[in-house]
Amino acid sequence: MKIIVDAFGGDNAPLEILKGSRMAVEELGVDIVLVGDEKKIKKCADDNSINISGMEIIQADSVFEMSYNPKTIMKEHADTSLAVGMKALVDGKGDAFVSAGSTGAIVMGATFVVKRIKGVKRAAIASIMPSQKEPFMLLDCGANIDCKPEHLCQFATMGSIYMKNIMGVASPEVGIANIGVEENKGTQLQLETYAMLKESELNFIGNAEVRDIAYGAADVIVADGFTGNVILKMYEGVAGALVKNIKAVFKKNILSMLSYLGVKGGMNEFKAKMDYKEYGGAVLLGIAKPVIKAHGSSDARAFKNAIRQAANCVKKDVVGEISRNIGSVDSET
Amino acid sequence: MKIIVDAFGGDNAPLEILKGSRMAVEELGVDIVLVGDEKKIKKCADDNSINISGMEIIQADSVFEMSYNPKTIMKEHADTSLAVGMKALVDGKGDAFVSAGSTGAIVMGATFVVKRIKGVKRAAIASIMPSQKEPFMLLDCGANIDCKPEHLCQFATMGSIYMKNIMGVASPEVGIANIGVEENKGTQLQLETYAMLKESELNFIGNAEVRDIAYGAADVIVADGFTGNVILKMYEGVAGALVKNIKAVFKKNILSMLSYLGVKGGMNEFKAKMDYKEYGGAVLLGIAKPVIKAHGSSDARAFKNAIRQAANCVKKDVVGEISRNIGSVDSET
Repeated sequence: MKIIVDAFGGDNAPLEILKGSRMAVEELGVDIVLVGDEKKIKKCADDNSINISGMEIIQADSVFEMSYNPKTIMKEHADTSLAVGMKALVDGKGDAFVSAGSTGAIVMGATFVVKRIKGVKRAAIASIMPSQKEPFMLLDCGANIDCKPEHLCQFATMGSIYMKNIMGVASPEVGIANIGVEENKGTQLQLETYAMLKESELNFIGNAEVRDIAYGAADVIVADGFTGNVILKMYEGVAGALVKNIKAVFKKNILSMLSYLGVKGGMNEFKAKMDYKEYGGAVLLGIAKPVIKAHGSSDARAFKNAIRQAANCVKKDVVGEISRNIGSVDSET
Repeated sequence: MKIIVDAFGGDNAPLEILKGSRMAVEELGVDIVLVGDEKKIKKCADDNSINISGMEIIQADSVFEMSYNPKTIMKEHADTSLAVGMKALVDGKGDAFVSAGSTGAIVMGATFVVKRIKGVKRAAIASIMPSQKEPFMLLDCGANIDCKPEHLCQFATMGSIYMKNIMGVASPEVGIANIGVEENKGTQLQLETYAMLKESELNFIGNAEVRDIAYGAADVIVADGFTGNVILKMYEGVAGALVKNIKAVFKKNILSMLSYLGVKGGMNEFKAKMDYKEYGGAVLLGIAKPVIKAHGSSDARAFKNAIRQAANCVKKDVVGEISRNIGSVDSET
């Protein structure tokens, strides 16, 4: 198994990417193909004593900056590590691709270079998120700002396949992100999606009330990309702001700092439960080969987990499963 | 100043409503008009030794149940405390109306019984929410599932008037809830609203990135009712789930319980900062008289604060201010 890795994506590239790749080779037994400027990669590895022997390197002269327009990835920026990596995936130089680079550019590259699975109308950014019960998958998290009901139904099918095959959920519960559980809630999009999913063979449980999402409302939660992105970012933003407050409370004085010792174990368990880095990155479901978008701030461990996630997608043939099942809701292409 | 109070709205009616009304009389010096079944009100006051002497009572035979269709408030359920209270407001039996009852029914009643201010195209549910900086106003929180750009612009005007007059913000910053700060982010609704608000005389600061909302992104954040409701509920849901976890960490064992003593002060400050009950309820902006929707789970203090909010709206003539300014973005009615 060979995983192609964008060595120059994300805030901590290339150092943490190289470290994570090394961890992946040792812990997961996968082969790694690094994409990026060979000299810089070798220098970074040397400077930090990271063993990259055995890792193939594909030369890419430049880096896709966050400020670039995602649409420019195919033409103006075809020499970036992101674009070259996508091309290498299409050319069969590896089985899956992982990048912590620009989400928009990854979506564009995946859609127009790697291309969608036949029958899939829209690829979705699918994120695994923590809840008070089990982690769940939210899709689409922002690839498609406007969606039609049939898109959401395909997201439901693809998300169910992922949760079953990769996360081991026997019969994933599917819900529509909505502002109430009642069948008549939401805009035309949610109403029509409800009617379609009710007729599907998925384990559709109705609307997932947004207030319940953090408590665990369903295994697969579908939304248009705008709403999904709002949910994802509200989750991150509110959790981040609260954790910052709690930290400040403990740092207030000597007594409060000492108090932390009494709850350290519990706090660590809590942190582990909330840690998105454990599940890897977001996966682009509906693309003809596995493409993983690692979090921009990924450290070595988070990046290694994204590589593991990519390897699992290959192993469990998520692409093949989607291809065989995507006709179940709507077979028209 | 007379505030009309729905004595039978919310989870804790009528007991906490009566207690809160009593507190309002004593602390705020307002007159209270209670609406509901007189016998039940008097019995509850007697049983709990709440002094309601001096409070007027308007008889209403029944209660608007949460399971009722909001649209039935005008005809089938015109004898409920909610409907009778709205009618009393129109008839000038008080200056403002407060209820902790069904949000949908309050929106319907306010729109079709009390009616909108001339020139206002849509009334909005406007909530005051906590942030890491100052509290901010989010509107619409769910009155209008589908919105047009001109509606969001009116929300921006109305929210600015409220934040200035009631919350004392000199020049309220207005932002559009969006999935990025860049001008080209979002759906057609956000794009067109951006273009319109840029030309307005409001203190428009551009898009309020959803991830930053809990940290304090703007004083007034506008959204369509679907998105606003998603933001409101994600805020409540994520905060609730996290606080539950933190509590569990402290309750884990003797040592962790003792540790709480060392951070109790800081935790209480944190709780106070996050406490929505302090600001009152949600206000229906755009309605011809002040209508406040108190939180369904309001206790006496939260309800008293909702009454204070209603009294402030009367005192500062928020309705008059909106009426005089609503033409600033779009004068067509």
